[in-house]
Amino acid sequence: MIIIGERINSSRKSISQALTSHDAEFIQNEAKAQIEAGTHYLDVNAGSFVGEEERYLRWLIEVVQEVTDYPLCIDSPHPEVIKSLLPLVKTAPMINSITLEPRRLEVILPLVAEYKTKVIGLCQAADAMAETAEDKLTMAGHLVEKVTAAGVSHDNLYIDPLVYPLATNTDSALATLDAIEHIMKEFPGVHTTCGLTNISYGLPNRKLVNRTFLVAAIVRGLDSAIIDPTDKMLYGSLKAALIIGGKDEFCMDYVTAFRQGRLG
Amino acid sequence: MIIIGERINSSRKSISQALTSHDAEFIQNEAKAQIEAGTHYLDVNAGSFVGEEERYLRWLIEVVQEVTDYPLCIDSPHPEVIKSLLPLVKTAPMINSITLEPRRLEVILPLVAEYKTKVIGLCQAADAMAETAEDKLTMAGHLVEKVTAAGVSHDNLYIDPLVYPLATNTDSALATLDAIEHIMKEFPGVHTTCGLTNISYGLPNRKLVNRTFLVAAIVRGLDSAIIDPTDKMLYGSLKAALIIGGKDEFCMDYVTAFRQGRLG
Repeated sequence: MIIIGERINSSRKSISQALTSHDAEFIQNEAKAQIEAGTHYLDVNAGSFVGEEERYLRWLIEVVQEVTDYPLCIDSPHPEVIKSLLPLVKTAPMINSITLEPRRLEVILPLVAEYKTKVIGLCQAADAMAETAEDKLTMAGHLVEKVTAAGVSHDNLYIDPLVYPLATNTDSALATLDAIEHIMKEFPGVHTTCGLTNISYGLPNRKLVNRTFLVAAIVRGLDSAIIDPTDKMLYGSLKAALIIGGKDEFCMDYVTAFRQGRLG
Repeated sequence: MIIIGERINSSRKSISQALTSHDAEFIQNEAKAQIEAGTHYLDVNAGSFVGEEERYLRWLIEVVQEVTDYPLCIDSPHPEVIKSLLPLVKTAPMINSITLEPRRLEVILPLVAEYKTKVIGLCQAADAMAETAEDKLTMAGHLVEKVTAAGVSHDNLYIDPLVYPLATNTDSALATLDAIEHIMKEFPGVHTTCGLTNISYGLPNRKLVNRTFLVAAIVRGLDSAIIDPTDKMLYGSLKAALIIGGKDEFCMDYVTAFRQGRLG
């Protein structure tokens, strides 16, 4: 289970404030806390600074790399920003993300091949979102084609089938769960990943909904997630889901996490 | 989602004490608390009183029926005990349980037909437990045959595929989850139910494991469970699993339960 730690994101107020006040220590502590909590990648995102994203994201990459060589997940919808910043990155990172938009594919895929990065591919086109399991699977297939044509191995592709709010579509989670299962079966070697927050939009007790969805997704085959690993309730659900899903032999990892006080 | 409230069971120390001291009020309060928490059936079990089970179970049935006509779930492995006590029961109950043991089937099935009860069928024979999904499904098929031959409709059968400890068999939960999905598909109208506590035997933070398994099972189709409905963390997971599984249109039940303060 590959965890992408989502905390260093300028959509969070504390991160936005640390960015504007150049509080490097705050950012570095966020990085350390997520590493200690078991993350595999540190997502860095400065997307809320429209027009200044590149400058702020550069600073995030620099200050995080001052304290760790843990792999980053470079998170921007702008391919030019990613292209400009990749040379700074010390350890082969993950790129978050491509969609089926031609412009993003053209710029990003050669970089994925050149820098030997991982890449998150969203089931989304320039003019269409995939809401049904069938549409998600079709778009996943197109992503696999494009990535393979660029000489990138399946193992470097993390497909995010995306999830939309349950409050407005009762079948929204099921569509994503079905897509996860089919993607994992039809494209061996390809990973699936997912952010959780959309699913609970508009509902009370959102964290309960998010971690319940994560459990269902892991049991259906999800092998990566974009989460806050310092949320012990969520992390506990994740570790328990791995034993339920038969992914943790004799529950060794679960028991270890319990002993380390990491299960909520 | 049919909830069978499991709290009135003599394997719990407080219930055992109330039984020996004839503390009717304690038992009645357990019944009321579970009704308030959303149970559909009240399980009553005096199985730990070997040789005196019938006398104690009779008393449980009587004291609970003094305060409510909520349906009971008469829980005993001894068909004679069930046969003797059924005439006392005011509202058509559930019987917990039959297995494929001929003696239990011979005594219980005519009672199920006569008293128009529901019945829980365990995937278990006199000489064999079903540990794989295939074996569970085979035994489920035999249960369906026997019940149908006795003139009992599918809707009155609740199949419990049983679950064994994850600590000794990494694939134990997956076998039960696969069985649930196949039973629900192959025998339309039949229900599935499950107790949760076996799954976590020998593991730390058992409640986390139990509720995580419940989520996975509901998303695979489980439509009944034998649980403690007053456990708010568990009940919250159950309600959230129903929205993830597309069983709660526009999340109305979930939001109602939240407003009533019933989600942990």
